[in-house]
Amino acid sequence: MVDNMRIENDFLGNKNIQEDSYYGIQTLRAGDNFPITGYPLHSKLIQSIAMVKKAAALANFDIGKLSKHLKDSIVQASDEIVAGEWHDQFIVDPIQGGAGTSINMNANEVIANRALNLLGRQKGDYDYLSPNTHVNMSQSTNDAFPTAIHIAVLMLSEDLLATMNHMHQTFKEKAKEFSHVIKMGRTHLQDAVPIRLGQEFEAYAHAVERDIKRIRESRQQLYEVNMGATAVGTGLNADPRYVILCKDYLKDISGYPLKSAEHLVDSTQNTDVYTEISASLKVCMVNMSKTSNDIRLMASGPRAGFNELNLPPRQPGSSIMPGKVNPVMPEVLNQIAFQVIGNDNTVSQASEAGQLELNVMEPIIIFNLLQSIDIMNNGFFAFTNYCLTGITANEDQAKDYVDASIGTITAISPHIGYERTSNIAREALETGKSIRKLCLEYGIMTEEELDHILDPYELTKPGISQLPVNSK
Amino acid sequence: MVDNMRIENDFLGNKNIQEDSYYGIQTLRAGDNFPITGYPLHSKLIQSIAMVKKAAALANFDIGKLSKHLKDSIVQASDEIVAGEWHDQFIVDPIQGGAGTSINMNANEVIANRALNLLGRQKGDYDYLSPNTHVNMSQSTNDAFPTAIHIAVLMLSEDLLATMNHMHQTFKEKAKEFSHVIKMGRTHLQDAVPIRLGQEFEAYAHAVERDIKRIRESRQQLYEVNMGATAVGTGLNADPRYVILCKDYLKDISGYPLKSAEHLVDSTQNTDVYTEISASLKVCMVNMSKTSNDIRLMASGPRAGFNELNLPPRQPGSSIMPGKVNPVMPEVLNQIAFQVIGNDNTVSQASEAGQLELNVMEPIIIFNLLQSIDIMNNGFFAFTNYCLTGITANEDQAKDYVDASIGTITAISPHIGYERTSNIAREALETGKSIRKLCLEYGIMTEEELDHILDPYELTKPGISQLPVNSK
Amino acid sequence: MVDNMRIENDFLGNKNIQEDSYYGIQTLRAGDNFPITGYPLHSKLIQSIAMVKKAAALANFDIGKLSKHLKDSIVQASDEIVAGEWHDQFIVDPIQGGAGTSINMNANEVIANRALNLLGRQKGDYDYLSPNTHVNMSQSTNDAFPTAIHIAVLMLSEDLLATMNHMHQTFKEKAKEFSHVIKMGRTHLQDAVPIRLGQEFEAYAHAVERDIKRIRESRQQLYEVNMGATAVGTGLNADPRYVILCKDYLKDISGYPLKSAEHLVDSTQNTDVYTEISASLKVCMVNMSKTSNDIRLMASGPRAGFNELNLPPRQPGSSIMPGKVNPVMPEVLNQIAFQVIGNDNTVSQASEAGQLELNVMEPIIIFNLLQSIDIMNNGFFAFTNYCLTGITANEDQAKDYVDASIGTITAISPHIGYERTSNIAREALETGKSIRKLCLEYGIMTEEELDHILDPYELTKPGISQLPVNSK
Amino acid sequence: MVDNMRIENDFLGNKNIQEDSYYGIQTLRAGDNFPITGYPLHSKLIQSIAMVKKAAALANFDIGKLSKHLKDSIVQASDEIVAGEWHDQFIVDPIQGGAGTSINMNANEVIANRALNLLGRQKGDYDYLSPNTHVNMSQSTNDAFPTAIHIAVLMLSEDLLATMNHMHQTFKEKAKEFSHVIKMGRTHLQDAVPIRLGQEFEAYAHAVERDIKRIRESRQQLYEVNMGATAVGTGLNADPRYVILCKDYLKDISGYPLKSAEHLVDSTQNTDVYTEISASLKVCMVNMSKTSNDIRLMASGPRAGFNELNLPPRQPGSSIMPGKVNPVMPEVLNQIAFQVIGNDNTVSQASEAGQLELNVMEPIIIFNLLQSIDIMNNGFFAFTNYCLTGITANEDQAKDYVDASIGTITAISPHIGYERTSNIAREALETGKSIRKLCLEYGIMTEEELDHILDPYELTKPGISQLPVNSK
Repeated sequence: MVDNMRIENDFLGNKNIQEDSYYGIQTLRAGDNFPITGYPLHSKLIQSIAMVKKAAALANFDIGKLSKHLKDSIVQASDEIVAGEWHDQFIVDPIQGGAGTSINMNANEVIANRALNLLGRQKGDYDYLSPNTHVNMSQSTNDAFPTAIHIAVLMLSEDLLATMNHMHQTFKEKAKEFSHVIKMGRTHLQDAVPIRLGQEFEAYAHAVERDIKRIRESRQQLYEVNMGATAVGTGLNADPRYVILCKDYLKDISGYPLKSAEHLVDSTQNTDVYTEISASLKVCMVNMSKTSNDIRLMASGPRAGFNELNLPPRQPGSSIMPGKVNPVMPEVLNQIAFQVIGNDNTVSQASEAGQLELNVMEPIIIFNLLQSIDIMNNGFFAFTNYCLTGITANEDQAKDYVDASIGTITAISPHIGYERTSNIAREALETGKSIRKLCLEYGIMTEEELDHILDPYELTKPGISQLPVNSK
Repeated sequence: MVDNMRIENDFLGNKNIQEDSYYGIQTLRAGDNFPITGYPLHSKLIQSIAMVKKAAALANFDIGKLSKHLKDSIVQASDEIVAGEWHDQFIVDPIQGGAGTSINMNANEVIANRALNLLGRQKGDYDYLSPNTHVNMSQSTNDAFPTAIHIAVLMLSEDLLATMNHMHQTFKEKAKEFSHVIKMGRTHLQDAVPIRLGQEFEAYAHAVERDIKRIRESRQQLYEVNMGATAVGTGLNADPRYVILCKDYLKDISGYPLKSAEHLVDSTQNTDVYTEISASLKVCMVNMSKTSNDIRLMASGPRAGFNELNLPPRQPGSSIMPGKVNPVMPEVLNQIAFQVIGNDNTVSQASEAGQLELNVMEPIIIFNLLQSIDIMNNGFFAFTNYCLTGITANEDQAKDYVDASIGTITAISPHIGYERTSNIAREALETGKSIRKLCLEYGIMTEEELDHILDPYELTKPGISQLPVNSK
Repeated sequence: MVDNMRIENDFLGNKNIQEDSYYGIQTLRAGDNFPITGYPLHSKLIQSIAMVKKAAALANFDIGKLSKHLKDSIVQASDEIVAGEWHDQFIVDPIQGGAGTSINMNANEVIANRALNLLGRQKGDYDYLSPNTHVNMSQSTNDAFPTAIHIAVLMLSEDLLATMNHMHQTFKEKAKEFSHVIKMGRTHLQDAVPIRLGQEFEAYAHAVERDIKRIRESRQQLYEVNMGATAVGTGLNADPRYVILCKDYLKDISGYPLKSAEHLVDSTQNTDVYTEISASLKVCMVNMSKTSNDIRLMASGPRAGFNELNLPPRQPGSSIMPGKVNPVMPEVLNQIAFQVIGNDNTVSQASEAGQLELNVMEPIIIFNLLQSIDIMNNGFFAFTNYCLTGITANEDQAKDYVDASIGTITAISPHIGYERTSNIAREALETGKSIRKLCLEYGIMTEEELDHILDPYELTKPGISQLPVNSK
Repeated sequence: MVDNMRIENDFLGNKNIQEDSYYGIQTLRAGDNFPITGYPLHSKLIQSIAMVKKAAALANFDIGKLSKHLKDSIVQASDEIVAGEWHDQFIVDPIQGGAGTSINMNANEVIANRALNLLGRQKGDYDYLSPNTHVNMSQSTNDAFPTAIHIAVLMLSEDLLATMNHMHQTFKEKAKEFSHVIKMGRTHLQDAVPIRLGQEFEAYAHAVERDIKRIRESRQQLYEVNMGATAVGTGLNADPRYVILCKDYLKDISGYPLKSAEHLVDSTQNTDVYTEISASLKVCMVNMSKTSNDIRLMASGPRAGFNELNLPPRQPGSSIMPGKVNPVMPEVLNQIAFQVIGNDNTVSQASEAGQLELNVMEPIIIFNLLQSIDIMNNGFFAFTNYCLTGITANEDQAKDYVDASIGTITAISPHIGYERTSNIAREALETGKSIRKLCLEYGIMTEEELDHILDPYELTKPGISQLPVNSK
């Protein structure tokens, strides 16, 4: 035997393992097989799989299949992992073949060896406490891993929803702050009719609100887990009492209202719960990218752009152009959007690739889901706190555009007809004259009537501007 | 003037129009501008925009802005279009610039000219009845067109849901029919443990059920319409009484429980209602593509494949190989899936491209949405009726696989441990001996015990196969 | 027998066919099986498959397998189809299961029945001239159909390249026309340093040039065809003399330098030639969408936007806002881009779904490829002729932005250092004072020096603005 | 001043920096602004940007703008980074707003402070040696960063191509090894006609060969760099002598045949070089996913699947099913494919989002490009060495399928016609009788003739099986 090494064995042969490693032979094989991204596993996923192992051990003890001291040591080892310990012993790559077996076995081995140590025994003494026979008792990767995924996504998306609620609140506050700022509405990037900046920010707030609702609803599906259905969803080798107990323990441990999936074969092989939640993230980022584009557009300039908004300067914008400041916070949201939309494409492909009793592409699904939620959460946090809260309006500039615009003529149209109004509009455009001036020249309305009908604030409210009393 | 032509005029100039054309100058311009796909507009979209025009005319009459005879003729012209007439007068391409203005104006012009004829006047007599001033009264493209989209998608998806319900029912019936057919479950395409074909078809049925629910729920959002918010959602030029009346009329005409969107600026510029419904279609097709793949896999052979299922022969499968029959019905579902997933990509991009007060990419959104729903509906109809209902099982073949398999050893594992079982499994694989034979050779269990534990039907049910009483 | 009907038979049974239909029983079955899109087959695809049938007949005659009169009649029938006749007899849907067998059989049947008529015989007299035995002689769908796809894409993309050459030329002409127009360059939508509009249009022209090159190169792969490799690429049932002759005839008939693929099993099962050409279309549209966005941005306004460009007005832009004109031509390019990018997603999925000896998803691949090329070709034609050629610049506006901007200070930076320049820039921004004024106030440079260094035209050229001689 | 901290300043204010940090104030701001992924920057990107800085310093010295001792220290600091030092000082997140300015400034600051130390001065002494004025001299982010991207992708893809060449070679060797293994070809997953396993592996090899060619060709575009065109591509502030010198130095340093882009405004704002290379990666993975699927399908079983191939066992496949081994190596390739295809979607979106003079989404583009290349390289390495080389064939099983199949009847079809052959085929299918037996029963051919025509090896070669001499 090599110094500081122990030998482990599985049905494919032996391997030397560093004596101080909690992971074992199957983890090592997987580490060798999948040198793909070099990224660590997500800590939330490590924690959630440890929760699953703890719940299973408690349930197996209750039905008399696991002895007390093995159960106790498995529970303690799992608790340590949930508390953040031993995460460096999870060495398998997030992108891996095998439907998550390697992640599951990494957890089984780390817990087994840690439990063995807690029991005062050597690592690798699997006859005493085996990663498969004891830690994985009554489980297969095909129920333990998806259940862990569900819990990991539930935990991480809970953070996301909190951040989104704060962003939503902030959009609403800015809407209030900007409720009096009159500006030109633009459709097709062409001057349309006046609108208030507050109305625009309300619209952004509403979109975020719907996205919160969508993500929250798609997240509900995750409460259904398939613990106990083992390899193909039929429940072979899982005692029916265990199935109920394990789910109940996991409910307590995770704090989520978990329940057994209605049809366990279905929930073992179909992955639309992931496709759906990924789609809800995508829809959110499609909205946020549009909002980011709007903010960047309104902040364009300062001299050769719209210049309606000022974003808080966060960093010098150019290594060559002195004094330049760029809209880096909405820009990073755009990029996060592109990533999340691309990740959704990956999730969909992986979900479509399920075959018969199992979708073996789950590792790439969970890698992308967790990454999407993470970068959204981080991006929204930064955007809200470093940019959104500090946005100010250039009210004068916004007002000047309204005063100069031709689009306000729309309010005159109901009074003199679309065709005649069109001709005045074209003349205004070609001559540079104002609508007001032309209306007076053609004797269409009096100054007083125009004051009333072209009142910018009124133009942002529903209805047809009425001529004042005693007017024609 | 050219023979058989009338001259129409807008603020860009004059154009000759065929005298018998109900469409007018703006339609003709759009026809010239967008010679893109050559496809006709979707008939449901033509019908729904006519419904919008009718509702607006009724509401405009009620508030005293439109005279009775103009209203009556607009209503009648609209009714004719809803009934399927004049659809050949909608000549603009579904892919077009301009946020649907061309579709809206095509409708305005056809209705105006048809209404003029109904009133005994010449087509083109827009001083009497104008496409803009009267047919489009109180509307802009930016509320009339999205509202029409909502109704078109509601109508078309109603058909889809009915077809899906039938497919769901059929999957459930087949599940019942196959409930006794024992077969090998496969994970990673490798033999796992037994399962029943009925359980697999139940899983397919459950996925369809969730998809129905998802599509139905995402469809709810379409009940919120922005009629009356005109160009930018502020409601300029729409009388508040009109807004309510128009929505109520449209509710009656369409038969859907429409309501005004909560925030009209939001609903004029944000298009996540479309992204969401498109995503729900995508999620559905990701599931259906997996199901189609499974069916094709189980029907592979007949001699060099799985050969567990027989699909009804629908057409000779090869122009060169006599007697060959291919699984063309699930194959077409796969292709529909790829199209719908690609269309969802298009819808997401278009939705992200909204700017400020409007998303001008709505034409490509609605083109893709309606196409996706159509081909899903047609594909599900054909698949259900021409394939699914007629699928039969090769029970003997399915049973033979179970008998020959090694995976059944999983049931023995709880009794003798994972490690020892593994060794027997490898020996079975290498020698070709059966699990039963090896267990007897090694004296692990008696024949009677093995009969009990390896009973195939029991292996498809939850729990650990127990040794019979009086056994060790 | 029903009146006006004939009975046809295949190994699945009999069917009544309308006596005047040139298509036969297999086409009819496919028509029933695939009621998916309702779109017709692309005429270029119908023509190219007829070319294949003609070439095969000529080759089969040469090797003595087909009699002269059968050959002559098949050739004539095929020629008629190439000339545009009988396309209404191609009734199968472009989205279909079965790897194109239905399209191939539709062609075989129409040609057989037309040939029978030319020979003075009844339609359906397949003992005399059979769709399979004679028209499809030495072929299978798996070589005839991909070969037809290649030719169809070659023909259609030839049109596209011509249109793109014209667009490229037009961008270059506009670049020349705008070569003197000085404007602010913008990065991050923020004012950067001056640039000339001509330089921007040169950049657009260069992108188009690369796209032409990319499409042309990816198109080269299509010259390799797999005629003669029949069902799985091994060439079973294709006489080696036939293989060479057929390819040579097809070369003449199509006018393209076709050659046999290097490895016929490979070219029968792998579809990367399609994925590649679709990717080149996608890359092109990614570029064009960016260019369209730029044009729409520069044309934004007229009063509340950049207002640097004027696009030719093509149609009234609003049904409610009089005089409004929208950038509908670049907008339609954006939408075409989204469709082509979505279609590329579909093509990739379908290509990935190939299995073993064949990719049965070819119908959806060719449907999307031809649609993408068509809408690009039509969109580029319309954009170039109706928009690009007529674009004009608002030189004064563009110049005003440069004069007002702070970014020109970049040219001063090499003379006084980045840090000091930054401070002046921030002061200019905060006070609204011009760079020139501040430089004079702080005694940084003389008027003469500033005239030289801040000369706008010089600022658009490479190098560091040098101080004039005798200057400090 | 806080202990162990230095204070740095930019035009937005002051910040405390850890005294031992080589990065400075702008890096710190960026670190705060973008807490997005937590991933480090790619080491190849850090190295390539250091190469750019070195080349610029050498060129600036040559034209007399940078003193010798500043140049020498910048060069040495850059060399150290290229050699792998100080990478931990690059703390900005790969996903970031600002078009790479933060990465560029991180490099500028680390090099400046390291150079200051080398010169015996304090970190932060920017009056002496400034990140902007000296390290970034004659550059902007908009030329330095894309140039670094080009070099990073060139370096990383060089590794990829080497790995792919090895994989290609291995596929060819396996093709040779399997050249005699006769098996059923399958189309539509249905038995077709015989083929040899070697032919299939040749097809896989050919696809890899084309992918190598495609990636190599798209990589060529990266040789064109825009060094010297600074902020918007016009070259303002870059001395023309510097432009040539810098490019030449960089050519030497990187070892790649770099040249100045033909049109520098174009190459500063258009990013199709990235979209193109990403597309070529995607096309490759579409092929590889199909190949992986084929291998998994052929290795399905062992008892209830095709069982034609054996993959080397790499790890126990199940935590519950003893002895199970899964095809984990092709499975990981599928997942890598889904990721790369999703990443291509992200790259396309980001590329489309370029605006006017710059694409500010470059960080997300390069993040995805480098990730795609990395995981492909790692995945191909593992797949080739751990799986492909060790694949073996189950020749007997493969042969049995051929013997049992009906598809071989295709070879008889040219002799007795498609229709008659079809009937025999259907009878064989329904009765389970062999083709040979039926042909004898119906007196179609003699035993001798059948031996000849149905010879499996002959059936995998081109041509029509001829009856032996003296046969009918």
